[in-house]
Amino acid sequence: MVNKTTIGIIGAGRIGKMHAENIVKYPNVKVKIISDIFTDNVQDWASDLGIEKVVNEYEEIIYDKEIDAIFVCSPTNTHAEIIIRAAKEGKHIFCEKPISFSLEETKEVLDVVQENNVKLQVGFNRRFDRNFSKIHNSVKNGVIGAPHIIKITSRDPEPPPASYIPNSGGLFFDMTIHDFDMARYIANSEVVEVSAYGANLVDSYIEEAGDIDTAITTLKFANDALGVIDNSRQAVYGYDQRVEVFGESGNLTCENDRPTTVELSNEKGIHKDKLKNFFLERYEDAYLLETKSFIKAIQEDLPLICDGNDGLQAELIAKAAKQSYVEGKPVKINQ
Amino acid sequence: MVNKTTIGIIGAGRIGKMHAENIVKYPNVKVKIISDIFTDNVQDWASDLGIEKVVNEYEEIIYDKEIDAIFVCSPTNTHAEIIIRAAKEGKHIFCEKPISFSLEETKEVLDVVQENNVKLQVGFNRRFDRNFSKIHNSVKNGVIGAPHIIKITSRDPEPPPASYIPNSGGLFFDMTIHDFDMARYIANSEVVEVSAYGANLVDSYIEEAGDIDTAITTLKFANDALGVIDNSRQAVYGYDQRVEVFGESGNLTCENDRPTTVELSNEKGIHKDKLKNFFLERYEDAYLLETKSFIKAIQEDLPLICDGNDGLQAELIAKAAKQSYVEGKPVKINQ
Amino acid sequence: MVNKTTIGIIGAGRIGKMHAENIVKYPNVKVKIISDIFTDNVQDWASDLGIEKVVNEYEEIIYDKEIDAIFVCSPTNTHAEIIIRAAKEGKHIFCEKPISFSLEETKEVLDVVQENNVKLQVGFNRRFDRNFSKIHNSVKNGVIGAPHIIKITSRDPEPPPASYIPNSGGLFFDMTIHDFDMARYIANSEVVEVSAYGANLVDSYIEEAGDIDTAITTLKFANDALGVIDNSRQAVYGYDQRVEVFGESGNLTCENDRPTTVELSNEKGIHKDKLKNFFLERYEDAYLLETKSFIKAIQEDLPLICDGNDGLQAELIAKAAKQSYVEGKPVKINQ
Amino acid sequence: MVNKTTIGIIGAGRIGKMHAENIVKYPNVKVKIISDIFTDNVQDWASDLGIEKVVNEYEEIIYDKEIDAIFVCSPTNTHAEIIIRAAKEGKHIFCEKPISFSLEETKEVLDVVQENNVKLQVGFNRRFDRNFSKIHNSVKNGVIGAPHIIKITSRDPEPPPASYIPNSGGLFFDMTIHDFDMARYIANSEVVEVSAYGANLVDSYIEEAGDIDTAITTLKFANDALGVIDNSRQAVYGYDQRVEVFGESGNLTCENDRPTTVELSNEKGIHKDKLKNFFLERYEDAYLLETKSFIKAIQEDLPLICDGNDGLQAELIAKAAKQSYVEGKPVKINQ
Repeated sequence: MVNKTTIGIIGAGRIGKMHAENIVKYPNVKVKIISDIFTDNVQDWASDLGIEKVVNEYEEIIYDKEIDAIFVCSPTNTHAEIIIRAAKEGKHIFCEKPISFSLEETKEVLDVVQENNVKLQVGFNRRFDRNFSKIHNSVKNGVIGAPHIIKITSRDPEPPPASYIPNSGGLFFDMTIHDFDMARYIANSEVVEVSAYGANLVDSYIEEAGDIDTAITTLKFANDALGVIDNSRQAVYGYDQRVEVFGESGNLTCENDRPTTVELSNEKGIHKDKLKNFFLERYEDAYLLETKSFIKAIQEDLPLICDGNDGLQAELIAKAAKQSYVEGKPVKINQ
Repeated sequence: MVNKTTIGIIGAGRIGKMHAENIVKYPNVKVKIISDIFTDNVQDWASDLGIEKVVNEYEEIIYDKEIDAIFVCSPTNTHAEIIIRAAKEGKHIFCEKPISFSLEETKEVLDVVQENNVKLQVGFNRRFDRNFSKIHNSVKNGVIGAPHIIKITSRDPEPPPASYIPNSGGLFFDMTIHDFDMARYIANSEVVEVSAYGANLVDSYIEEAGDIDTAITTLKFANDALGVIDNSRQAVYGYDQRVEVFGESGNLTCENDRPTTVELSNEKGIHKDKLKNFFLERYEDAYLLETKSFIKAIQEDLPLICDGNDGLQAELIAKAAKQSYVEGKPVKINQ
Repeated sequence: MVNKTTIGIIGAGRIGKMHAENIVKYPNVKVKIISDIFTDNVQDWASDLGIEKVVNEYEEIIYDKEIDAIFVCSPTNTHAEIIIRAAKEGKHIFCEKPISFSLEETKEVLDVVQENNVKLQVGFNRRFDRNFSKIHNSVKNGVIGAPHIIKITSRDPEPPPASYIPNSGGLFFDMTIHDFDMARYIANSEVVEVSAYGANLVDSYIEEAGDIDTAITTLKFANDALGVIDNSRQAVYGYDQRVEVFGESGNLTCENDRPTTVELSNEKGIHKDKLKNFFLERYEDAYLLETKSFIKAIQEDLPLICDGNDGLQAELIAKAAKQSYVEGKPVKINQ
Repeated sequence: MVNKTTIGIIGAGRIGKMHAENIVKYPNVKVKIISDIFTDNVQDWASDLGIEKVVNEYEEIIYDKEIDAIFVCSPTNTHAEIIIRAAKEGKHIFCEKPISFSLEETKEVLDVVQENNVKLQVGFNRRFDRNFSKIHNSVKNGVIGAPHIIKITSRDPEPPPASYIPNSGGLFFDMTIHDFDMARYIANSEVVEVSAYGANLVDSYIEEAGDIDTAITTLKFANDALGVIDNSRQAVYGYDQRVEVFGESGNLTCENDRPTTVELSNEKGIHKDKLKNFFLERYEDAYLLETKSFIKAIQEDLPLICDGNDGLQAELIAKAAKQSYVEGKPVKINQ
């Protein structure tokens, strides 16, 4: 007989609400409390979903004895404190990426998590995408032999608003961090060196905030494979997310998902649908699976698909990439 | 404020269970009772899903005052009686295809439904497939001008068991009936003549039961367009479901859905996933949408996407196709 | 040591000129004479190509002792007489399809060809297309087991001019005849029955000339497979030529060739090239290969890829299709 | 009236023979002489092709007054001397890449070519590929606005023999040089900085010869775009050649050419042809067009599609890439 799991969600923004709506689709789990500093528009939505309480202070979640696990969906600069306090109360934790903007802080978080023997899953939702997951498994199962070249294309449909940029951590911590995790996941090997080129080609407010909007980041892996990630904050044709792995006995690629497979042929040519719009649509299934996987890991005490160390490793690469871009030379990763 | 809708399901086989599981995903709806002549294995599944009662006699559903609508998922030869009795009790009805194997019976059913002013939706789930639905809308919106040629490929991955064939109604009533509905849906026009070729190429037990396993059916529409459907009971590569519409100013096609978009290139060639296995996987989203659409139509008193007359029309074509195959000549449709 | 082959071409229209230009690309062959009733614009073109003589009367070719083989590229109503006279002079013959509009005449032609022991190749160029040729070979090699369903899509980009229609032989003899040959070629079996639906949906001048512009033709093969061909005289998106073969252990399809593989993704969707324009572009390689194959068959006394009997069989099916369309019922093929 | 052009070919290896066979397909051109240090196996081939003379010493070509232009298809270390001597005799020159392994030598060659007012085309055949050429034109015509990211995948099916490596100039000069030219061609901008990662993952004899077999090279362009090239000496699935350009208003991609468009669906999945085997098959049309373009430029005194300066620029980038790889840091390009 499976135990019931009771969950609290910290942060009722877009991503917090999405997690709540996903969790209630599973049996044997309930969302008891959701907290946010703004709760005005949350109450109706929450009661429709069967959530008992909407609160302002996340402490009400952490110190609730019935709560087994929390989802941390608040701003990045609050993550470390919340995780540390929740871990000490014995709660399992699902945290959106990144854990923090400071490697020291992230390492401290990981120590506390370990001491208190709770689970910490980091929200690298793309690991749960069926295409990328199949590529990961194929590489792991030796379908293409040793991987030689890993290529990731990752482009957002449009840049975040100007107000978002200054607290985003910058392109490498905010956007490429997903790709750094994907690179490790696909290569089954750690990144040992990184070299990054950046540019400002999209919109001046990004440059004015001291950030870049376009980047090509090259990676060296411990297993001697090479990798490359290209990023842009603005792909006018939609959310472009592709992975390719070239190996000694083959090559694996995947196409972007499109809303339908319909093609129109007319006098002007052949036309297919645009890509799916953005992360909530594109990774809809992946978000569901990541939640399912976390709940199952808690209920059956299984290892996580992406844990705190995966969060740390991606931050290490992001930090090195930023340094490489600033200094104009390759940077080795210090573990 | 939307009303709560209370539903009863008649038949707890594979398709009845699927509908129950889909219905409970929506708010403002509940499944109160499910009936089946065999209830042994249904009880646990039902209580997990929050269904109050499991009964043997469908009358317990029909005469329950709280029930607003029923799903008829029992064998075809029980449909007419159930619908007629339920309609007289003022229940809305969702019925799996076909309504019956007899046109007279189907017409009687439609009369009773109309007299009692209830809604009757027929389970032509494919209308809710996102690819076919986009093609339908594109044709309707004039994207390719007047349609000239409608082509439907519809092949099952494997034939039903020998025991199923004798009561199936035969290929045209059991399998092609979906395609007849799709043809009408896409063409936005009625079929006025049909000509069918059949063959026994798959397995001898089908022939022995007096049925065929392979067919090509040609259609003439009232708007002068022509159509063709090809069927097989056994496509070893999976469930092959494609639609194409050629018109005066373009052509619309769609590919089959595959589980992933991953391609492997190796020494032997380029390889993609097999097709999705069968109807429950392939039309998973369509089944959800069809239920949603039915519930919404009841709650907001909207017209149905596919109603009793759509069921009747498809049966008219199926009957004509069977006659054409048997007599070896084209048959006009008598409305 | 290979013999030199000397060729004469009868008819200097578009297709005659194309054959001449293809032949001169091969070593050990020369075009000595080309004849046409209009020779004004031919002279310069011919001398550039190294053709010795341009004449009005095709007899100058037939009775030239140096000529080994002729290409018959004149109007269909002249084919039979030319072939019969040339065969009696011992010339090998390449003839554009159809051999004639009369089955009796075609049979007489075949008898004379046989009596005089010359080779007669019919211009079913599509057999030499690399896609269709691979499908034919795959079926022959058992890649999909026994074929069950053969599907051919064959649509011209635009209808011929009004002046062409009356002497074209009609849709089935002029256009579908290529598809009838393709069906036999792919099925590796003879057609035993045909059932045709036609319509006038493209332009009134076709109907006024007593012809149709749209058709769906269903075929029964001697090996019990079924086939279907859909035709239109006007596909605004280009020359649409596809073949599909479904069999007991798989399905073979092919896409249309496009000028490039470039895809553009932008705010409106994903866009690919239109199809290749028409038969000279689409079958450019096939025309070259058909010529090469004919010359090789002469020089090395090999069997032909498509001979006089293939021409006759396609005409038999065309005649039956026309009769089926006119009479509104299936027609058996009388060999 | 177009002048006849008389051509001599220096080097009768695989590539020299291919050029000869391509040239003779055009009117108004003839190959008069071909030279090679080994002429034993060349004589029969040459006389079949109508080439008058086969000689050992290339001087017989350079000092032949009838020769208008030469094709330099001898080893790279002979290019500079041959071009310089030929230019002084007023011959136009087509030279395989690279012009030399020394930038000083290449610059000297360009000076002599300019002084003698002859044309020098460098054999960057890929500019004439219909896919890449369409992408170049689309970018130039503003179809995707300003280019932001240029991506080139360029992988050989198998490494050259061990004996070839020591005199190849190394991966960047032998293989990536084509991609450097393609990057400039597509970006319509000069490369100003390059950063290269290399690895030995394919075969030990390459490492033993002091060369690498795998590389990722990142580029900065004068127009602020970024670029990346990934190379491998061994793609077991065939010759993988793709280009992608991402810009402010869209993305352009192209697929590899495959021998046919046939797809087989069976119990194991969906299967397509392998890629075309290697450069002679893949770029067959491009080689023909490059020759045609060179001859036309001579006969009509037109500018070349890729001239000596294009050769020099690619060598500048190759040299910088090699240095970047060796020194482990980005290198700026000195013009």
